[in-house]
Amino acid sequence: MKDTAVKPRRLQSYLEGAWRAGTGEGRPVYNAATGQIHALIGTEGLDFKAALEWGRRVGGPALRKQTIHERALMLKAIGLKLMEMKEEFYLENFATGATRKDGWIDIDGGIGTMLTFSSKARLELPNAKLITEGPVERLSRDGSFVAQHVLSPMEGVAVHINAFNFPIWGMLEKIAPSLIAGMPCIVKPASQTAYLTELVVRRMLETGLLPEGALQLVTGSAGDLLDHVSEQDVVTFTGSAGTGRMLKATPAIVQNSVRFTMEADSLNASVLGADAEPGTPEFDLFVKEVAREMTVKAGQKCTAIRRAIVPSRFEDAVIEALSARLAKTAIGLPDGEGVQMGALVSRKDRDGVREKIREIAADCEIVSGDPENVTLVSGDAGQGAFMTPVLMRARDPMSADAAHGIEAFGPVATVMGYQDADEAVALARKGRGSLVSSLFTNDRDIARDVVTGLAPYHGRVLIGNRGSAKTSTGHGSPLAPLVHGGPGRAGGGEEMGGIRGVKHFMQRTAIQGTPEMLSAVTGQWVDGAPAQSDGHPFRKSLAELRIGDQVLTKSREVTQEDVEHFAHFTGDTFYAHMNSDAAKANPFFEDRVAHGYLIASFAAGLFVDPEPGPVLANYGVDNLRFLTPVYFGDSLQVRLTCKEINPRANGEYGEVRWDCRVSNQKDEVVAQYDVLTLVAKTWPQAA
Amino acid sequence: MKDTAVKPRRLQSYLEGAWRAGTGEGRPVYNAATGQIHALIGTEGLDFKAALEWGRRVGGPALRKQTIHERALMLKAIGLKLMEMKEEFYLENFATGATRKDGWIDIDGGIGTMLTFSSKARLELPNAKLITEGPVERLSRDGSFVAQHVLSPMEGVAVHINAFNFPIWGMLEKIAPSLIAGMPCIVKPASQTAYLTELVVRRMLETGLLPEGALQLVTGSAGDLLDHVSEQDVVTFTGSAGTGRMLKATPAIVQNSVRFTMEADSLNASVLGADAEPGTPEFDLFVKEVAREMTVKAGQKCTAIRRAIVPSRFEDAVIEALSARLAKTAIGLPDGEGVQMGALVSRKDRDGVREKIREIAADCEIVSGDPENVTLVSGDAGQGAFMTPVLMRARDPMSADAAHGIEAFGPVATVMGYQDADEAVALARKGRGSLVSSLFTNDRDIARDVVTGLAPYHGRVLIGNRGSAKTSTGHGSPLAPLVHGGPGRAGGGEEMGGIRGVKHFMQRTAIQGTPEMLSAVTGQWVDGAPAQSDGHPFRKSLAELRIGDQVLTKSREVTQEDVEHFAHFTGDTFYAHMNSDAAKANPFFEDRVAHGYLIASFAAGLFVDPEPGPVLANYGVDNLRFLTPVYFGDSLQVRLTCKEINPRANGEYGEVRWDCRVSNQKDEVVAQYDVLTLVAKTWPQAA
Repeated sequence: MKDTAVKPRRLQSYLEGAWRAGTGEGRPVYNAATGQIHALIGTEGLDFKAALEWGRRVGGPALRKQTIHERALMLKAIGLKLMEMKEEFYLENFATGATRKDGWIDIDGGIGTMLTFSSKARLELPNAKLITEGPVERLSRDGSFVAQHVLSPMEGVAVHINAFNFPIWGMLEKIAPSLIAGMPCIVKPASQTAYLTELVVRRMLETGLLPEGALQLVTGSAGDLLDHVSEQDVVTFTGSAGTGRMLKATPAIVQNSVRFTMEADSLNASVLGADAEPGTPEFDLFVKEVAREMTVKAGQKCTAIRRAIVPSRFEDAVIEALSARLAKTAIGLPDGEGVQMGALVSRKDRDGVREKIREIAADCEIVSGDPENVTLVSGDAGQGAFMTPVLMRARDPMSADAAHGIEAFGPVATVMGYQDADEAVALARKGRGSLVSSLFTNDRDIARDVVTGLAPYHGRVLIGNRGSAKTSTGHGSPLAPLVHGGPGRAGGGEEMGGIRGVKHFMQRTAIQGTPEMLSAVTGQWVDGAPAQSDGHPFRKSLAELRIGDQVLTKSREVTQEDVEHFAHFTGDTFYAHMNSDAAKANPFFEDRVAHGYLIASFAAGLFVDPEPGPVLANYGVDNLRFLTPVYFGDSLQVRLTCKEINPRANGEYGEVRWDCRVSNQKDEVVAQYDVLTLVAKTWPQAA
Repeated sequence: MKDTAVKPRRLQSYLEGAWRAGTGEGRPVYNAATGQIHALIGTEGLDFKAALEWGRRVGGPALRKQTIHERALMLKAIGLKLMEMKEEFYLENFATGATRKDGWIDIDGGIGTMLTFSSKARLELPNAKLITEGPVERLSRDGSFVAQHVLSPMEGVAVHINAFNFPIWGMLEKIAPSLIAGMPCIVKPASQTAYLTELVVRRMLETGLLPEGALQLVTGSAGDLLDHVSEQDVVTFTGSAGTGRMLKATPAIVQNSVRFTMEADSLNASVLGADAEPGTPEFDLFVKEVAREMTVKAGQKCTAIRRAIVPSRFEDAVIEALSARLAKTAIGLPDGEGVQMGALVSRKDRDGVREKIREIAADCEIVSGDPENVTLVSGDAGQGAFMTPVLMRARDPMSADAAHGIEAFGPVATVMGYQDADEAVALARKGRGSLVSSLFTNDRDIARDVVTGLAPYHGRVLIGNRGSAKTSTGHGSPLAPLVHGGPGRAGGGEEMGGIRGVKHFMQRTAIQGTPEMLSAVTGQWVDGAPAQSDGHPFRKSLAELRIGDQVLTKSREVTQEDVEHFAHFTGDTFYAHMNSDAAKANPFFEDRVAHGYLIASFAAGLFVDPEPGPVLANYGVDNLRFLTPVYFGDSLQVRLTCKEINPRANGEYGEVRWDCRVSNQKDEVVAQYDVLTLVAKTWPQAA
């Protein structure tokens, strides 16, 4: 290991705008692979109450001054800078016992997750300070009293307490959604690997891109931090179920109804389908995946496969194939040549795993690997926290309570045989709620039956087969667009899941009032709110355009000739347009009707302004509904109103959403939809 | 009171399929207005662990056999039956101290909420057993690895612990979303008014419409019920913050990460806008609303206005107007002639309110009403829990901690003066999180500033003004489509909110795999999954149609003549279609392009089958995006695939959603959208 000669670094916390070491020399943190002291850590004398107040008073207001897109772009800029300097993180990563490949999940995976959040936020959320959610709800018959849900950033601090195994990813997957939501963060990494988190936070702060107070860091004990959280704060926890439960019951958290999200290690299962007999691609994929999950990060992943649930008749074959694969794993110094598996995070943790294996052995036998001895290709077995992968087999899986309930957080898994799909599901559920489960099958019926059985007990279920062998991200990888978290034993929390993860840091509020008042709050036009007609709104750039700008078009009659002409022109000679008797036999029509697409086409003809102008393109239509049939002789009129303006933070134009209502001569709404356009930010005016 | 001579009824619990009284005579429950014993209650000797198991084993599977629409229709049928027999509930309601008008919220409001949930579920959710949520997420570049979130019913029991003030609404607003989700319920009403809940449960069970185990009832103490909840159960609580916090920390709830939702009484504020001076409609509406919230249900509502925040210069006028209005309130027996306000739920509760008033008086003075004496139009002040409405005034509102923190759960409110909008918001926030807040203003800027300030601290904010004076449902009314629940003091929970409320009883799971496997699980076609082309799918009724039925049409060239013809026919002569130089100047086009509506029209011409058949109508289009410009000479081809089939539970047809992909001769996707059709369940075949 390259850092053996380095003097241990005294880690600091970043609180109230300054790096602070606290009093005392600090407690030693060890290099996982060499056993040497790598850093000194401690928070004695630091004022966490003041840090929370700093976040609320300084960080929150600074973040909330920006729009969602501005905050997302800030994270993108930081992410790109971190990508440039990632080699430094890979070097430091070795001290955690992780190989370069292990580090990829943490480093590239973590930065990638932040970048994905940035991009999703700009694609899926408005460039605004407030988000509206769901449709406007009509609460009175006459439309004078309506409601809409809005989401606003919570005005406290997001306290993120992270596990040792992903010192970078664990931080970034949590601060990305918090910061996009507009909440400042205090990150508290686990002490064992806090040096890596500290390094990344230093680099992030050095970019100067984050407003002061947006990100604070606690390296070492969290002391009385949680005693001071309040009703607008959020606490997230990733780590052991025991610690999580204890924190969840902290008086200040309970007293102030503080949102508390927990991701706990769980006894994740992978199921081999009854169709996936030895020799099939799915059998091989399963064996490869179980072995990979046991050895990546030396099995110290909250999503790792702990239980391999296999058809009883394939049990021996699975054990044989797995054992052979595991036996070939080259164990040694994480930066050593040809090493496939590094060290556990500490010798103490390794001893804990050995102890758990003894407990699980109550209903299981070891079929591969010696927990007490390890053969290394490099490194010192007496100094580093090395361990041989251990495969166990449950004697009677349905009653193997130890194997379903005790977690050895290391390179350990148990094989369990099952008779039929129901029993496979029942065994998986004996984990009493897990982060993730997987199923390897190439049979659609097996996929349906097993996955619907697994779903209520899991936050994520992966189906592996030959069709995704090359592209699957695997059982163990949480992904930014997908929910991470599971019920019961897994903590009952939910993180990420794309924009869902951002909403966890916002307060949902139903706003009720007249359309005018609702519109004033949301900044979006609501049907019934005042509108203004001062020239065609398509002549206005974003600089001039206002919510409620409206055009009410002339009327146009729809004749039989129009419909027949359109039918022959487009080829759409559906009987309801062409044949009176057949149309009358249709339960929805009284006679021949105009085509829906004819209505939308005529509507565009009525509202479009033909000359070049700031409206650059119509890129789509949302929620188009044909509400009343149009018969020959009916007249169409369009009311088009500017509903939502979404200027791009980094572009010359923005999206404008128009409410389009097409009505007939009786003022019945014939069609209703949103027209989506791209509009230039500025446009030279003729006048 | 009509029931004074009635012998007290021994209340029973409905557990494990039978009405059970438990051992002993039961504890007395008093008529709030007469003070006489109205019922006897107790649960000694009842087995709650077995009840939970019964719900999980019998109720859950029976409910999950049905589809969402079937469960929703079941609730509709029950709701309509309850509506027919509601007079019986109104009679029993008087014993709670509530007038007929008060009872309307509980009885008609409760049944109406259940009916609204039934109708929303059938409108907004598929007629399926599993819900998909959000788009299919593409996880690999080649589309071979994708994901989607699904929601499945949790497989435990929903335990609903309710407050005394809404014995019917409190139950129905919770069991409606739970049952629609597919979770069986155990309802535990507050003992003080459990007789009314018990009566309604009896009537619901007598309809025979609920499957056995779907609904159980505990009248009396919940005993060790919560000690047996497990990872698939959900607990909801409505009541005092103190009790809620205690229950939330129950070991089994913490240990098993049981979802716990809490709605606690909060110190809800109503703000009078600076524009709403005496003489304006908003001033009058505010006074009327505060008085109404103080006297409806004798002020015993979790959403009642406790703090009236008014511009300091209007403070005297508000106090004068409010005092005058309150002084006219006729108090007496809830079923008495002309009575406007009945009794509090018990004399003990009334004494508690008096005690809280004394505590609040630390920083406030009483400006109207004598807490110790009451003048009645009927009834006996020595027997019934009657009380005069009490209005207080905070001497220094910004430091009036007692008025912001102590809740007198009765006809009591405090007036607080403010200087500017920021101070009004700051005062409201001193409640540290409330269920609801309201603002009375006719000024758009005030609405925007105050409401955005209130939002992060509230689950609902109502804006009152002249425009909704006749249609507003008022500050105090939670509504089925809107979120009910607030942060901090209000418990941090969230209920109702339309379909959001249903999802609280389901597990969200991200499913990953190939399109084929994902499709097998969700029952929806996913792009990339196998498709079959055996005849035009528009010739198939729901009886024959299968997910993945596909038609790939012929190609059609789009010519300059087509575009010019369409332009003149529809009137849409936008320059990008008509003028080559102008089109080239547009940042998105290289030359003149075809109209988006022309593409969609030609596409329909390509895929429509003209003869009468099972496809009855195209009722809309979703998510239409024009992805690649179409130039003259390009050829269009359509691939239309059956994506989702949603047969109506009570109708001759269903909705079918088709994936429509229009591509050009280079196989670039030109337009992508969902076509929505109505398709008959059966159709006579020519063959």
